[in-house]
Amino acid sequence: MAEQRLGIIMNGVTGRMGTNQHLVRSILAIRQQGGVRLANGDRVMPDPILVGRDAGKLEALARQHGLARWTTDLGKALADKNDALFFDAASTQLRDSVVGQAIDAGKHIYCEKPVADTLDKAVALAKKARAAGIKHGVVQDKLFLPGLLKLKMLREAGFFGKMLSVKFDFGYWVFEGDLQPAQRPSWNYRAADGGGLILDMMCHWRYVLDNLFGNVKSVSCLGKTFIPKRWDEQGKPYVADADDAFYATCELDGGMVAQITCSWATRVRRDDLLTLHVDGTHGSAVAGLQVCRTQSRVNTPRPVWNPDVKQGMDHYETWQEVPDTQAFDNGFKAQWELFIKHLYDNTPFKWDLVEGAKGVQLAELALKSSAERRWVDVPVLKV
Amino acid sequence: MAEQRLGIIMNGVTGRMGTNQHLVRSILAIRQQGGVRLANGDRVMPDPILVGRDAGKLEALARQHGLARWTTDLGKALADKNDALFFDAASTQLRDSVVGQAIDAGKHIYCEKPVADTLDKAVALAKKARAAGIKHGVVQDKLFLPGLLKLKMLREAGFFGKMLSVKFDFGYWVFEGDLQPAQRPSWNYRAADGGGLILDMMCHWRYVLDNLFGNVKSVSCLGKTFIPKRWDEQGKPYVADADDAFYATCELDGGMVAQITCSWATRVRRDDLLTLHVDGTHGSAVAGLQVCRTQSRVNTPRPVWNPDVKQGMDHYETWQEVPDTQAFDNGFKAQWELFIKHLYDNTPFKWDLVEGAKGVQLAELALKSSAERRWVDVPVLKV
Amino acid sequence: MAEQRLGIIMNGVTGRMGTNQHLVRSILAIRQQGGVRLANGDRVMPDPILVGRDAGKLEALARQHGLARWTTDLGKALADKNDALFFDAASTQLRDSVVGQAIDAGKHIYCEKPVADTLDKAVALAKKARAAGIKHGVVQDKLFLPGLLKLKMLREAGFFGKMLSVKFDFGYWVFEGDLQPAQRPSWNYRAADGGGLILDMMCHWRYVLDNLFGNVKSVSCLGKTFIPKRWDEQGKPYVADADDAFYATCELDGGMVAQITCSWATRVRRDDLLTLHVDGTHGSAVAGLQVCRTQSRVNTPRPVWNPDVKQGMDHYETWQEVPDTQAFDNGFKAQWELFIKHLYDNTPFKWDLVEGAKGVQLAELALKSSAERRWVDVPVLKV
Amino acid sequence: MAEQRLGIIMNGVTGRMGTNQHLVRSILAIRQQGGVRLANGDRVMPDPILVGRDAGKLEALARQHGLARWTTDLGKALADKNDALFFDAASTQLRDSVVGQAIDAGKHIYCEKPVADTLDKAVALAKKARAAGIKHGVVQDKLFLPGLLKLKMLREAGFFGKMLSVKFDFGYWVFEGDLQPAQRPSWNYRAADGGGLILDMMCHWRYVLDNLFGNVKSVSCLGKTFIPKRWDEQGKPYVADADDAFYATCELDGGMVAQITCSWATRVRRDDLLTLHVDGTHGSAVAGLQVCRTQSRVNTPRPVWNPDVKQGMDHYETWQEVPDTQAFDNGFKAQWELFIKHLYDNTPFKWDLVEGAKGVQLAELALKSSAERRWVDVPVLKV
Repeated sequence: MAEQRLGIIMNGVTGRMGTNQHLVRSILAIRQQGGVRLANGDRVMPDPILVGRDAGKLEALARQHGLARWTTDLGKALADKNDALFFDAASTQLRDSVVGQAIDAGKHIYCEKPVADTLDKAVALAKKARAAGIKHGVVQDKLFLPGLLKLKMLREAGFFGKMLSVKFDFGYWVFEGDLQPAQRPSWNYRAADGGGLILDMMCHWRYVLDNLFGNVKSVSCLGKTFIPKRWDEQGKPYVADADDAFYATCELDGGMVAQITCSWATRVRRDDLLTLHVDGTHGSAVAGLQVCRTQSRVNTPRPVWNPDVKQGMDHYETWQEVPDTQAFDNGFKAQWELFIKHLYDNTPFKWDLVEGAKGVQLAELALKSSAERRWVDVPVLKV
Repeated sequence: MAEQRLGIIMNGVTGRMGTNQHLVRSILAIRQQGGVRLANGDRVMPDPILVGRDAGKLEALARQHGLARWTTDLGKALADKNDALFFDAASTQLRDSVVGQAIDAGKHIYCEKPVADTLDKAVALAKKARAAGIKHGVVQDKLFLPGLLKLKMLREAGFFGKMLSVKFDFGYWVFEGDLQPAQRPSWNYRAADGGGLILDMMCHWRYVLDNLFGNVKSVSCLGKTFIPKRWDEQGKPYVADADDAFYATCELDGGMVAQITCSWATRVRRDDLLTLHVDGTHGSAVAGLQVCRTQSRVNTPRPVWNPDVKQGMDHYETWQEVPDTQAFDNGFKAQWELFIKHLYDNTPFKWDLVEGAKGVQLAELALKSSAERRWVDVPVLKV
Repeated sequence: MAEQRLGIIMNGVTGRMGTNQHLVRSILAIRQQGGVRLANGDRVMPDPILVGRDAGKLEALARQHGLARWTTDLGKALADKNDALFFDAASTQLRDSVVGQAIDAGKHIYCEKPVADTLDKAVALAKKARAAGIKHGVVQDKLFLPGLLKLKMLREAGFFGKMLSVKFDFGYWVFEGDLQPAQRPSWNYRAADGGGLILDMMCHWRYVLDNLFGNVKSVSCLGKTFIPKRWDEQGKPYVADADDAFYATCELDGGMVAQITCSWATRVRRDDLLTLHVDGTHGSAVAGLQVCRTQSRVNTPRPVWNPDVKQGMDHYETWQEVPDTQAFDNGFKAQWELFIKHLYDNTPFKWDLVEGAKGVQLAELALKSSAERRWVDVPVLKV
Repeated sequence: MAEQRLGIIMNGVTGRMGTNQHLVRSILAIRQQGGVRLANGDRVMPDPILVGRDAGKLEALARQHGLARWTTDLGKALADKNDALFFDAASTQLRDSVVGQAIDAGKHIYCEKPVADTLDKAVALAKKARAAGIKHGVVQDKLFLPGLLKLKMLREAGFFGKMLSVKFDFGYWVFEGDLQPAQRPSWNYRAADGGGLILDMMCHWRYVLDNLFGNVKSVSCLGKTFIPKRWDEQGKPYVADADDAFYATCELDGGMVAQITCSWATRVRRDDLLTLHVDGTHGSAVAGLQVCRTQSRVNTPRPVWNPDVKQGMDHYETWQEVPDTQAFDNGFKAQWELFIKHLYDNTPFKWDLVEGAKGVQLAELALKSSAERRWVDVPVLKV
């Protein structure tokens, strides 16, 4: 029961997401638990080297977590044959370029989404990875949200009968930055910097739809920029020209309709920042990040439409929570562990660069639908 | 201060809606309060004659409410010069025909929506009314819902700042009729009998959008039939082929987006059977039939996205109810009173057969959008 | 649409049950609603004559409800050819005798359970009725309890998956009569007067089991007399020698187990005086007289056995009520109407004297099981 | 006031129960409190050596709790004269064999139940222990549950008057293992591995009945296997052929009836995972693991049976909790202390291997009753 070292070049983990989810709650948490246990009983211990452009931030982050290795020289890091895996959570616009370099250097690849900012680049990257014969994976964290895992359990239990429709509601009010500082980075709201809600979120919804409800067949989308002026991290006003809200409808294999509303300009009156409301012939469910509630066919009330009196029926109390019958690990960490097992034990890992490209495909077609004001079919992606 | 008698031929009020809202809560309630007071102090006392096809039902209804006059002979009723107003709440499919007859007989017209089942018929009817020089009005009751009147007050108060978007959520689960009897008439679900949710509801949403948010410029719509088999009033199965759900997006003059979800195949997890969620730069509001709640810019919370813990923020408690500072009369009755004043005092009454035709126009274009899978512009209706 | 008169000889309706449920809430309520409507539109109007032994009670009851006809002479009543139906709610011990007389007089029969105090008598009565070619029915009111109708709906909806078991809990503490007056008649507790809980209730559970869960195949029963001394209606002590509690287990066609606990010597800590707890692979339900609550497979909590701390999980809040999606009429009245339609329209009516005899059969075999201390099979009843 | 060392060979404490209840909450807790104080003021300090088959688990468990001694060699452990007591919580199927070895080695014995998987073996073991002159005890932890201790207090207070009946409800839904992992080990559901609910629980109920209510005179039992297919710890399906539910009725010395329902296929709608409902002439009580509630004769309500309206009486609020007037130590630890005092001070200790054999006797006769479909008497056990 030996311990095997896995050297990981972690590029771009000084950002909030990279630091919290990938470095601290995934890689360092795996180290603390003694590594990832393989089929033969061996344990894989990840050994990260932090790569980025800001030496000060890198050094501080490494010191804070007791890590010895960091560098601003990506080329040198890629040249080290002892580090077999390259991970990227840096800029979307540069992703296909740095990941391409890592493939050329013979590294296995694990990276954030979107895998590229255009479908052509995403497909080219997937082809390059395949040609190189390396292993590759893309973060698809929403699938590991406890609320969505409960939806999956409900589907497998046959709870819904025939599933008819799902409604995604995502977003909240992102402060303009004048009265109080904004909660999200300003580049998200500038088209030239790779911002835009459609590109960001359609990459997620593609794998959620494909995996939980049915492959996406066609999409109709309307993107909007509701707040054209915002204030950045330094309190300076800027032109916000990327889409900050969109309204999409998708048709899925098997007949379901998915209605998707995403907005950074809405105030939240629902259970959670993301909710999925699924209706089926035998039951419905509304899932948030963690909690999922159901109403089955036999518990469905008979509401009365009476405009003359206040609604007497409480439409929240007629739902029942799906209990926590098992503990769910952090979704990012869970997916890291699956990928590491895939590296060593060759266990299947579905979410590779081709799956990542599908997310970019849906984002690109949604933008096309919005521009051409019509439904757009989603062809099977051939790589 | 004399009392003037207004003879009203009421066609098709043995149905649930006609009996409850138009006869009992409107006309009989107006009689009980002593009529409608005109500018000169006179009072108009409505004197209805019930018209329909089922003598037994008419007689029972008349007897129950102490009314002397009823008949199954529409032609004879229209021939009576003492009854100046014709009201229709009977079948949609026959509406333009019977209303046309009444115009020919020189009656003023007040009727339910949809005013016809095609735009051509609706426009022809409006032209005929105009040519005849009679007065005409169409029921547009949703505008009188207290929840929507509160939205109107918020808009007039400037509460929203710039209004950005509105989301309509309408519907509930209509029982299939096998396990328990259905709540709605079976003809609603058969295309050949004039059923279909798009035709029914788009007539409403047209005047709500035009009056509260901005004239409708264009529409994208997807209609669906989710439940293809239902059981009728006699417990017999039938093929339900009319659309029972639709997903629409509209662009409005002034830039707002309206997203409309209507379904008879959804289980309700929201404040009411109909909710309108309006987001504006300075505030948001969610209205139901009666209640309206707001969250202003300065009360907007800063939510945290953390998939590792249950949502700790209650996104319902951060909203504040708009208090009931005035009593709202039944909306049907209020509109009846406005129309009667229009008849006698020539006060303005916006919601005439042209406005009614606009509802049919939007329904027809929404169906076209669904068939052609693209956005459809809504031209200014010329009558 | 003519009105047809149905003369009904009502024997023994001065008791609590006979007066409240059969006379007032059934026959008089049917009269008030204008009779029972037949398939051809005719209405059947019941016209009762009250029969009993106590002239004073009969006269008072008749006067109170504005009824003209009553008599203490059963023979004379039976001789009147204008009264076609005989109903009996008098003493169990005399039932087969008076019902037999009525059959001889050519009357149709509707009566309370138990139809006789032994199986032999019950079978003889059913044979006599069949030979006479008259129509006959037996009250089986528990099937019409809203709580049990909801269970039936759940079963038809497939909610339970495979049904595994049902637990009947029936009874409450019947006061001995010393500290406060008893709630039930003293004859119920004397064997010689036809008392005993097994005979009384097994007649009910037979049709509930057969109709809702599966035909009874075998029974194991233990009867007990827990309270041997009681005080009667006059405050005098008496020897209570009839069984006042029993514990039965039944095996049903299809594999379900039914566990039945009935007791007049238990204090109630459950939802209602009668509860049925059904467990199935996909869901469970607990029904009382009116209310029914469910817990589905996907809402089933994962309880923790920890003897060191108080139970932290509320095992009541994890259940969801089945809503009242339809109004249920009084069960006695509903069954009367079905029987009257059976008389005139020949619509099927399952619960005849043979079904009534099955109830007596199960009671008799349960008593045998208790005496012989073993399981007893329940043969198919051949009449 | 000297400290005396008690060497204890603890066999099979790497399982959940052995680790938590016997090692951590009993032996280690006794060590932390400074041992068990004897009559003469001396303190007995237990010094465990862990014995098992998996060296890795033993080492980890020992390290975690700072224990120096562990071994996989049971024979060597038994040969050490410095360890006077042998404790067994390993497999039921091997228990009589390893305990027998320990008796041969001259050890005192303390062990879990069932003491053997057949009555013959259990009796032989008790005889062997008696012949060897060693001291012996069997875990009977349910007697020490606070809820049951409160029942004992109520009985001693005369609260119940004459006790009439007790109803045991035990169990909950054990997940099949497909949608979520099962809560209990898979061997429990395989007959060949010693599984089965009757054998497991009847050993408990025997001592609870004998000690709290009256010696068991006879038993009628029906065992069932409701869920024939389950998924094991590795997610693999297996055939579940052991009984997973049973329905038993017992008659007790003194006249009480005990009705026992145990099931791993029921959803819980009661106060706790185990409840005992006792009815007596003067009062009733319902006990869970910790909480006990009472309703006395003078607080007993007079319920009304009215099928036409919802139950208006809350049958939970009419009960009163028995307050916690004393702290109860962990039941396993309390029994360990009693046994250690028995070893050194010769204080009486009732629950020896003969009492343990009685549990096996009742389980065996219950299985016989289920097979032969009849009541089976429980003879006085002669050892």
